[in-house]
Amino acid sequence: MNYRTIFYTLGCVLNIEAAAMVLPLICAFIYGDSSIWSFISSIALCLLFGISLTVKSPKNKTLYSKEAFVTVALSWIVLSIFGAFPFVFSGAIPNFIDALFETVSGFTTTGASILSDIEALPNSLLLWRSFTHWIGGMGVLVFLISILPLSGSNNVHLIRAESTGPAVSKLVPKVKTTAIILYTIYLGITVLEMIFLLFGGMTFFEALNTALATAGTGGFGIKNTSLAEYSPYIQIVVTVFMVLFGVNFSLYYLALCGKVKSALKSHELRAYAGIILIATTLIAFDCRHIFANIGDLIRHSAFQVSSIITTTGFMSSDFDKWPEFSKAILVALMFVGACAGSTGGGIKVSRILILLKSIVKEVKIAAQPRSTHKITIDNRMVEHETVRSVNVFIVSYFTILLCSVLLISLDNLGFTTNVTAVISAINNIGPGLDLVGPTQNFSIYSPFSKIVLSLNMLIGRLEIFPILILFSPYTWKK
Amino acid sequence: MNYRTIFYTLGCVLNIEAAAMVLPLICAFIYGDSSIWSFISSIALCLLFGISLTVKSPKNKTLYSKEAFVTVALSWIVLSIFGAFPFVFSGAIPNFIDALFETVSGFTTTGASILSDIEALPNSLLLWRSFTHWIGGMGVLVFLISILPLSGSNNVHLIRAESTGPAVSKLVPKVKTTAIILYTIYLGITVLEMIFLLFGGMTFFEALNTALATAGTGGFGIKNTSLAEYSPYIQIVVTVFMVLFGVNFSLYYLALCGKVKSALKSHELRAYAGIILIATTLIAFDCRHIFANIGDLIRHSAFQVSSIITTTGFMSSDFDKWPEFSKAILVALMFVGACAGSTGGGIKVSRILILLKSIVKEVKIAAQPRSTHKITIDNRMVEHETVRSVNVFIVSYFTILLCSVLLISLDNLGFTTNVTAVISAINNIGPGLDLVGPTQNFSIYSPFSKIVLSLNMLIGRLEIFPILILFSPYTWKK
Repeated sequence: MNYRTIFYTLGCVLNIEAAAMVLPLICAFIYGDSSIWSFISSIALCLLFGISLTVKSPKNKTLYSKEAFVTVALSWIVLSIFGAFPFVFSGAIPNFIDALFETVSGFTTTGASILSDIEALPNSLLLWRSFTHWIGGMGVLVFLISILPLSGSNNVHLIRAESTGPAVSKLVPKVKTTAIILYTIYLGITVLEMIFLLFGGMTFFEALNTALATAGTGGFGIKNTSLAEYSPYIQIVVTVFMVLFGVNFSLYYLALCGKVKSALKSHELRAYAGIILIATTLIAFDCRHIFANIGDLIRHSAFQVSSIITTTGFMSSDFDKWPEFSKAILVALMFVGACAGSTGGGIKVSRILILLKSIVKEVKIAAQPRSTHKITIDNRMVEHETVRSVNVFIVSYFTILLCSVLLISLDNLGFTTNVTAVISAINNIGPGLDLVGPTQNFSIYSPFSKIVLSLNMLIGRLEIFPILILFSPYTWKK
Repeated sequence: MNYRTIFYTLGCVLNIEAAAMVLPLICAFIYGDSSIWSFISSIALCLLFGISLTVKSPKNKTLYSKEAFVTVALSWIVLSIFGAFPFVFSGAIPNFIDALFETVSGFTTTGASILSDIEALPNSLLLWRSFTHWIGGMGVLVFLISILPLSGSNNVHLIRAESTGPAVSKLVPKVKTTAIILYTIYLGITVLEMIFLLFGGMTFFEALNTALATAGTGGFGIKNTSLAEYSPYIQIVVTVFMVLFGVNFSLYYLALCGKVKSALKSHELRAYAGIILIATTLIAFDCRHIFANIGDLIRHSAFQVSSIITTTGFMSSDFDKWPEFSKAILVALMFVGACAGSTGGGIKVSRILILLKSIVKEVKIAAQPRSTHKITIDNRMVEHETVRSVNVFIVSYFTILLCSVLLISLDNLGFTTNVTAVISAINNIGPGLDLVGPTQNFSIYSPFSKIVLSLNMLIGRLEIFPILILFSPYTWKK
């Protein structure tokens, strides 16, 4: 285990976090709010540890697969712990476990909150919440790689361990360039959304926060009613951008290189668009008695479908009051999630495609045992290793889901609440149903359950294996 | 596709069903109840189709893998359709879909009912319900093989397609002898249970029904309160026998051959016993405020754990009123299920073992990529093919579960009700929670949902692939 490089990387992450906190600090200065000193002391704490860990650059910066997984898992834990300090220091969330839940929920782009009155927070803390979404959306190590001169070989492992989806490919041969391209596209679309939101009459602060939370597919709002009170125009803009941020970013790169046609041919993209269309239609039909006019009906259906499938978690209407069929569709979409290589969570459309194709393959083998059957996506064969790893992913996923429901049931809340709370946390959605529905919050859970749910969020965002490997005894055996 | 042999086998199945209906017919004569003619006409119908299909024995009786799956799936569907006639003809369940639901629930050993007043049924129909459990428990084709001189090669495929668990092995080289041994053990333990129940003061009729329903791990009772009103002695006897019928029957054969020690060394058996002990302890602790004395507490906890893990579904106490943690444990046990090669349903303990070991293997590979890692059970390597097929099983299982919840949500009943109804149906348990809790029934669902749930029961009992293969277009392509 190359401890030196692991600690060095953790130090870098803390330095980046200190730099990131400058944005809400500036906000605190502008609005003259009370949390100036809590940000200054949080930055000081980050730098204290960050600088002391990075003062000496290790000679051998090579990180092997195992070490990369451990580094990614530890980075996200450290990031969340230090990111919770502004909430604690300012007294906005005095309990550390509550603050940690909120920060993990931010960085993992979940958007589940323990706060009942969000509007009571000072603007700087609201901005910090939204900003954690943005940082977590594309990944802090991807950012680190894009700015720091780490040696080449470890970068591949790090970017793979942090990125989402079964087969994340490098866009260009150099990992560093890939990271820079990804962050540039990310920033570009975020700014574009801000511009559209400003046109809709949002203030700069509202537009900034909403764009950051949409971009990370996070879902923290700055209003107690999420996006329900905004104009139809704003809701439509947010719907469109949620869908855009759920697309595999490598397709944008392809499109920017002029290969728009081949980007549009992506099987995953087509499946993703198809699911959104079908789900919206079904929900609109099922909810036809709830909304007075057809415009509202389609807008709210499309908004909620996009919000859930991209695992953002914004709300335009209280879907906990919708009919059971619509709710069941939304819960199903929580599992599906967005495209691989996007900022969204969930199982990912491409994994679903591989899984469905592996079922078809099994049936084909039984029907015609002698012929050969291959799983293909985008006309390329999916490697056996990928199929196996996707299968193990699903098995681990449902095992963790079941165990987590068991653990949080100790709080004796209802079955629907517990099941949807875990589904929501592990898929990085935000709201669930019933007591954790879109107009409710997670403060009802005990500190123990909040830790379980925080772990679920981390497990979901990092796609299980980094956290499993971190806590596995095999990793630490010599 | 060897249609001749398929139809010939279906004919044999119908003849067996006609023979099986003689038992409730005798019962109807003894009690002089009103359903004599409904059984006589049902028997006539079975024989009409059965004899005309079997009048000419096909020359080539070889069934390949695909044909065996199709035969098994069709046999169970035909069995259920004809088995529903006594309910319809007698007017006890006039609606055919309701009667079909009840019969599928019987043969698949689920035990979910659409009847609110079971005690209103004539004794002959009660016995038919219990007897369908017994027939379905060990499998009708296994029975067919044990009595009919079918040629050797197709028997292996048939017994594999109907038996439960990832790796069902032949006990002895001859398939027919294996089938006879299995049914002899099955009958033996059933009679043993009857004797114990008679000692506890049950009437012969009660003991017969209870033993048949326990043996098949079915769960149809003959009282509206299931086993709640019986004496502690009876409840303890049923608990012990439910656990016994959840054990892999090949272990009994091993024990009968004098190899008791090696039977007790089975990893699956130990895991099964371990899960029952731990679950009982946790539930007993969680429910300590509900039951007045420790005897009741342990008895009800052990009864309900055994009833659910073996997928029987008997009730000794209304567990829908237990604390959420206990309910969550029971729902988790619904997934686990009994041992492979038993009469129980669910995912099966051996599959769970393989799945957990494949997660550990994945973590080990990430931690030490260069060393080789193998999955072993009972110190034997689990073949790669088995692991793959278990993985695809789980993926199909959760896909079907999710789609079914979606479909039955159209009835607009609650989330807990819908989710546990499907979990209960696909794992062949019987009761769920909330509106389908242990004191409720499934009559609340629409005919469409009843068909979906019936399909779930068949899919669960036949372990997914026979039904998938039956409905797959690849099977019917030339």
